[in-house]
Amino acid sequence: MSTDVAAKRPQSVPSQPDEKVNWKKRKTEIKEAQKQTKEAKLIKQLDKQKEKTESAERAKHDQSQNTKGRAYTVSVALPGSVLDNAQSTELRTYLAGQIARACVVFCVDEIIVFDEYGEDVKSVEGEFKGVGKKGHACIQLARILQYLECPQYLRKWFFPKHQDLQYAGLLNPLDSPHHMRIDDESDYREGIVLDRPIKPGKGSLVNCGMRKEVRIDKQLQSGLRVTVKLNKTQNQESKMCKGVVVAPHLPRTEGGVYWGYSVRLASCLSAVFTESPYEEGYDLTIGTSEKGGNMDQVALSPFKHLLVVFGGLQGLEASVDTDQHLEVTDPSVLFDLYLNTCPGQGSRTIRTEEAILVSMAGLRQKITAAFSDVSNGSLKN
Amino acid sequence: MSTDVAAKRPQSVPSQPDEKVNWKKRKTEIKEAQKQTKEAKLIKQLDKQKEKTESAERAKHDQSQNTKGRAYTVSVALPGSVLDNAQSTELRTYLAGQIARACVVFCVDEIIVFDEYGEDVKSVEGEFKGVGKKGHACIQLARILQYLECPQYLRKWFFPKHQDLQYAGLLNPLDSPHHMRIDDESDYREGIVLDRPIKPGKGSLVNCGMRKEVRIDKQLQSGLRVTVKLNKTQNQESKMCKGVVVAPHLPRTEGGVYWGYSVRLASCLSAVFTESPYEEGYDLTIGTSEKGGNMDQVALSPFKHLLVVFGGLQGLEASVDTDQHLEVTDPSVLFDLYLNTCPGQGSRTIRTEEAILVSMAGLRQKITAAFSDVSNGSLKN
Ligand SMILES: C[S@@+](CC[C@H](N)C(=O)[O-])C[C@H]1O[C@@H](n2cnc3c(N)ncnc32)[C@H](O)[C@@H]1O
Ligand SMILES: C[S@@+](CC[C@H](N)C(=O)[O-])C[C@H]1O[C@@H](n2cnc3c(N)ncnc32)[C@H](O)[C@@H]1O
Repeated sequence: MSTDVAAKRPQSVPSQPDEKVNWKKRKTEIKEAQKQTKEAKLIKQLDKQKEKTESAERAKHDQSQNTKGRAYTVSVALPGSVLDNAQSTELRTYLAGQIARACVVFCVDEIIVFDEYGEDVKSVEGEFKGVGKKGHACIQLARILQYLECPQYLRKWFFPKHQDLQYAGLLNPLDSPHHMRIDDESDYREGIVLDRPIKPGKGSLVNCGMRKEVRIDKQLQSGLRVTVKLNKTQNQESKMCKGVVVAPHLPRTEGGVYWGYSVRLASCLSAVFTESPYEEGYDLTIGTSEKGGNMDQVALSPFKHLLVVFGGLQGLEASVDTDQHLEVTDPSVLFDLYLNTCPGQGSRTIRTEEAILVSMAGLRQKITAAFSDVSNGSLKN
Repeated sequence: MSTDVAAKRPQSVPSQPDEKVNWKKRKTEIKEAQKQTKEAKLIKQLDKQKEKTESAERAKHDQSQNTKGRAYTVSVALPGSVLDNAQSTELRTYLAGQIARACVVFCVDEIIVFDEYGEDVKSVEGEFKGVGKKGHACIQLARILQYLECPQYLRKWFFPKHQDLQYAGLLNPLDSPHHMRIDDESDYREGIVLDRPIKPGKGSLVNCGMRKEVRIDKQLQSGLRVTVKLNKTQNQESKMCKGVVVAPHLPRTEGGVYWGYSVRLASCLSAVFTESPYEEGYDLTIGTSEKGGNMDQVALSPFKHLLVVFGGLQGLEASVDTDQHLEVTDPSVLFDLYLNTCPGQGSRTIRTEEAILVSMAGLRQKITAAFSDVSNGSLKN
């Protein structure tokens, strides 16, 4: 850090030449300035060296600690119908919040809300008509998940008042790394492109929840949500910061920072698999059920895109039954692994929101093992 | 076992020499005694061998089925102050329910609610004065935990209407094995001793939530909650069932069935340790904190009584700070292990109710490993 600051600090400038020149004084000043420049150079060199050593050490540390960037993704799917189990409208909202938090604690990158009842829901445009009336649970769950994922300073732009969010005040914050406070320092920030006249050749202005606005490298449609990578060196005097727009996955793949989740609606269980946003689809799929195999006897191999699927009140059997695109009745055949993640459970039934925490806690150890133990490649699932 | 018995069985002793010696008889007797000694040795050897085979088989069986009875116990402690984080009276109740369920899912035998603020609370006799007013959180949490643990058919006896239980209707049932439905078959049942005239020589009558009442072997004070072991064979014609009163731990230690938890109040963190209901105290204690050591690098040895302690909003540091009996400031020194149970968490903070599910899910695997892997004895904590 000190490197950047030293480089940016304004150098001591010789006095202005509009008064009569006192050559002796001038000479001393020049000498002094030269000395200072030399010193500054030296400091810069030393700083550079220090940074090199540090970054080498960091790299070493990263290697031992699972690299800086994270290449793989984790997706979680569950039926929106879980909201219909809540006993009041407040608890319906709270339940959605529990699901969001469970996913964030385990760095889930995508949450897929699928429709167990096969209505064809494709957007969050619908309205939730109140508890009791089934349906719209998917939309409400997706909306609350999106609301919570959005950094607080952007919510007023993206989430106008809505009945589904009536009890949003009861929701526990996600407190994820991309939810920055105003003075937090960070390499990346989420922002919204502002509606300001842009001079030709200059990029748009973005509100990233900082004291200053950020000038990005591109001209973009106002109102867009963007991920901004802030320049390493900023002009402290300037009224603006500078940054470039990057892909939303960059904080994860390059910086190794958890950067929230995306939300996807699926019209049925099979669409969870077939409509993957990843070109290659999911290369490791896990179904969860107390009727699954004992997870303790399973090791994971490294993967690119993991999908973990949870059922609702009636389990994944019900989701399979109502899916017209699926001929099978046994959910286990849909997955690479069908796992009981809580062998010996002391309750006859584990609720979906609990099962996410329990299952992901068990899988976390196995994921870590898969990616840290190089020799592990041989342990096939 | 049979070996020891054989060894202790009195050997046939030659008759006393104060009568006239019949040498022929004596010789035969000695021979006989020698033969018997030899036989006894042989039996001993055989018994030893048999025991070896049996214990090997038992171990094998244990590994695959984890023995029928469970000898060890698991206790969880947390500060009652967690309730004060809830945003409404409904959610306060719901939170207590979440804690109860998390403990039941992982077969926790004892929940200790400790007072972080050092008020001296020893019973659940107090009243909860409403959200906002701190304190009484311990009592309310303990009361809701007890309420939920009590089988539904006994609640009307043990839980008269109470303000702390105002929103009990929102609570999700524990659905643990000892919460039997009326026609469920079971070796054990929880019951209440009825206030009925008892004929001399006959035992008390107990309501065990079945269609018939149960005649037990003892005369007991009416109103007592008892654990009853039902006789294997029942007279179908009889108007009553028959059973014996047993220790509440028997379903666990003998039957291997999870039988709910007991609730204990502790006036401060140190009392959690010092007032253990187990004579020998806890022989494995684990503190939880994101500042703890990485749990992935730890294996557990078998234990008798495990205690896992959770902190509140401010972590265990706060609980240590307010405890006048503790001179230390670093909580880690209080425990055998101080563990981060969610390395790489995607939220800056994990809530206590979430941390119970997450931590116990991670520990479950390690507990299973400790008791199934015989060679594990060498892996010290
Ligand atoms: C209320 S449970 C469904 C129970 C349903 N009666 C069944 O038999 O599957 C809701 C979901 O939680 C998850 N779940 C519950 N217990 C589990 C366990 N022991 N292992 C893995 N997943 C579990 C599954 O995804 C399940 O579909
Ligand atoms: C809200 S947290 C406390 C956070 C507090 N600021 C701290 O630094 O410890 C409440 C409790 O959850 C548990 N907890 C939270 N995160 C944990 C983790 N990563 N590992 C183990 N326990 C954790 C601990 O028992 C903690 O006291």
